[in-house]
Amino acid sequence: MAEADPQEDLKRRALEYHARAPAGKLSVIPSKPCISQEDLSLAYTPGVAAPVREIAADPDKAYDYTAKGNLVAVVSNGTAVLGLGNVGPLAGKPVMEGKALLFKRFADIDAFDIEVQARDAEHFIDVVAAIAPGFGGINLEDIAAPVCFQVEEALQTRLEIPVFHDDQHGTAVIVAAALRNALELQGKELGRVKVAIVGAGAAGLAIARMLRTLGVTEVFLSDLHGVLHSGRADLSAWHQPFAVAPQDWDLAAMLRGADVVIGVSVRGAIPEAALSTLASKPVIFALANPDPEVDPAVARRLCPDAIIATGRSDLPNQVNNVLGFPFLFRGALDCRARRINPPMLLAAVDALARLAREPVPDMVRAAYGLTATQGLAFGPEYIIPKPLDPRLRQWVSGAVTVAARESGVARR
Amino acid sequence: MAEADPQEDLKRRALEYHARAPAGKLSVIPSKPCISQEDLSLAYTPGVAAPVREIAADPDKAYDYTAKGNLVAVVSNGTAVLGLGNVGPLAGKPVMEGKALLFKRFADIDAFDIEVQARDAEHFIDVVAAIAPGFGGINLEDIAAPVCFQVEEALQTRLEIPVFHDDQHGTAVIVAAALRNALELQGKELGRVKVAIVGAGAAGLAIARMLRTLGVTEVFLSDLHGVLHSGRADLSAWHQPFAVAPQDWDLAAMLRGADVVIGVSVRGAIPEAALSTLASKPVIFALANPDPEVDPAVARRLCPDAIIATGRSDLPNQVNNVLGFPFLFRGALDCRARRINPPMLLAAVDALARLAREPVPDMVRAAYGLTATQGLAFGPEYIIPKPLDPRLRQWVSGAVTVAARESGVARR
Repeated sequence: MAEADPQEDLKRRALEYHARAPAGKLSVIPSKPCISQEDLSLAYTPGVAAPVREIAADPDKAYDYTAKGNLVAVVSNGTAVLGLGNVGPLAGKPVMEGKALLFKRFADIDAFDIEVQARDAEHFIDVVAAIAPGFGGINLEDIAAPVCFQVEEALQTRLEIPVFHDDQHGTAVIVAAALRNALELQGKELGRVKVAIVGAGAAGLAIARMLRTLGVTEVFLSDLHGVLHSGRADLSAWHQPFAVAPQDWDLAAMLRGADVVIGVSVRGAIPEAALSTLASKPVIFALANPDPEVDPAVARRLCPDAIIATGRSDLPNQVNNVLGFPFLFRGALDCRARRINPPMLLAAVDALARLAREPVPDMVRAAYGLTATQGLAFGPEYIIPKPLDPRLRQWVSGAVTVAARESGVARR
Repeated sequence: MAEADPQEDLKRRALEYHARAPAGKLSVIPSKPCISQEDLSLAYTPGVAAPVREIAADPDKAYDYTAKGNLVAVVSNGTAVLGLGNVGPLAGKPVMEGKALLFKRFADIDAFDIEVQARDAEHFIDVVAAIAPGFGGINLEDIAAPVCFQVEEALQTRLEIPVFHDDQHGTAVIVAAALRNALELQGKELGRVKVAIVGAGAAGLAIARMLRTLGVTEVFLSDLHGVLHSGRADLSAWHQPFAVAPQDWDLAAMLRGADVVIGVSVRGAIPEAALSTLASKPVIFALANPDPEVDPAVARRLCPDAIIATGRSDLPNQVNNVLGFPFLFRGALDCRARRINPPMLLAAVDALARLAREPVPDMVRAAYGLTATQGLAFGPEYIIPKPLDPRLRQWVSGAVTVAARESGVARR
């Protein structure tokens, strides 16, 4: 019966939520009184000339007299939206508004969505650089690989504010934190495991880079055309560092004996048949949303000793980017960091991994409808903090700010 | 004594206002509940996929499911900010934030400021067109002439949403409404007056065009180099239609016998000596902010029968753009107009002129600290409504929407 279809019901409720007046999810409001003639004479002419003059003389004064210092642009060209692909900039707007909402909800950052109609990477870079002056940071979102790599690198070079592609680094941070804890629980070490990443887009490559930084030596990636190897002519400059020597490896060979399988692809991308060929005590992250690369229930049955994580909020161990980007930017903005650099990402990994080992306050359990005795103790079903944990801001942002200062990118 | 200098005091209070936490004047907030896991599942994944799919199938659905329909970008390259000139995009941010605040305060429109670092007109046009998809309208602001004309025309052609350069049309609308009433009070007709416009930038040219549309035949403009005439080689394509036959007219000759003098220039641009050469019962609008082109007290002494208006809030007859742009956009957004066209501008002129002739409610007087018996009755010192008059939205926006529908640019 259609009425009882949970997918249809979610769709109906989501459309109703978005359409409820005022349409959409964001509102721009004055942050200062603006009722009286006196208020308006300070906010606009003639008073506004004073901050204009101050900023013209010293651009850094924009942090004192405008919203810039707490303002992040959520920018997308709509070429890789959710699992829906290239829907274009306008159709991506609900996602970008949602992201901005999460910035506010989790880290009190004012974030505004900008959907860019851009023909190619150069054009997109040019547009974002042109509108950057008024923002304190740029969060790139849902941009297809490999354009996303080129865009982020160019903007990081051109701009003196943090430019961060969340689909890459946000995902990599959360995965790394969860994996560190999972491997400890399985009694394995990062330097000695074989990692197979199914999916070589923005997330897959960023995870691979992060894991290499953390000391993983055996990292393999696959995409729709098979394992990345140096005999392939279709690999971008960003894929090539992860190409292995040419061989007749297929996906099955890549997964055989793997200690860690990370799916950042689509439903079905991890074949069930391969699960029985994994190493003992494996770690399986099937992160595609809403349908994981392999059914977690099947994975549990075939690998009873596995630690399993997904992107789903209704299952244990949700790997969710909201654990990262709000707090990374909060930490960066708090010290006016010129960029979000690898030490800051690693600090976030460490903070998330450590927080998951702390006792969970009852208020966090309550937010998930759990009683004091239910779950959320460090273990195979709780390897990463829950998004509604209010300690995240202090733990993660604080660590990020310290790392920014120690690595010399903080400006205060 | 510096402590008592009113300019210094205003500067101090304005800087304090802008710096008070949170810095700046705008905040971006969720317009929907986003506390619980359920809220977040509708606002972001997995629920957000539903509006994405709807908009991908039908772009007009963006008006139903995103903030687009009530969202205006306040866009500037910072080349002509207030009377301060080319201060650059970042230093213009306080003005653009202020403008956005006025949109919200007066017409409940969500407006967001975008400061564009653009080398030239083509680049600026390209950037604004690229970021336009997510907005329901574009308010161009503080862009130097003649680039502003080229930018507006190109964007109006390329985009199917209202693109409106307030420094041009906003000013022209308010001036035209005030002038219509002033001339009636002086017993003169638009078709029979000589109008001298001192200042031939964005505002001056737009006022000249508007007055021609309203039937004024004798319109003369001057800039720093003298009267616009066809013997000058320095006139842009936008200035040329207002060039008179080559002659040795100077500013004094242009002003001699003028029924209307409109200053949209800088302090001192209207020479006091010329005032005694005006026609009898003249209309003098000296609109430069904060210091008018000629001292209004001097103008009053030299022309006792003049009707005088300025841009100042502390004098009668304030010609203030806030009487126009919030309500023009409100009217345009309410009917999803594809543009703000001349009939809509004329409807706003008419509504403003008519509203000034209506009895003023006591609550409006109270907003200005006036008692029921003080001022604000249609006459030489009240030719245009006051900005805090709550009837503006209904009168002006309603008229604009009707005009949009009748002229075929409304989409609903």
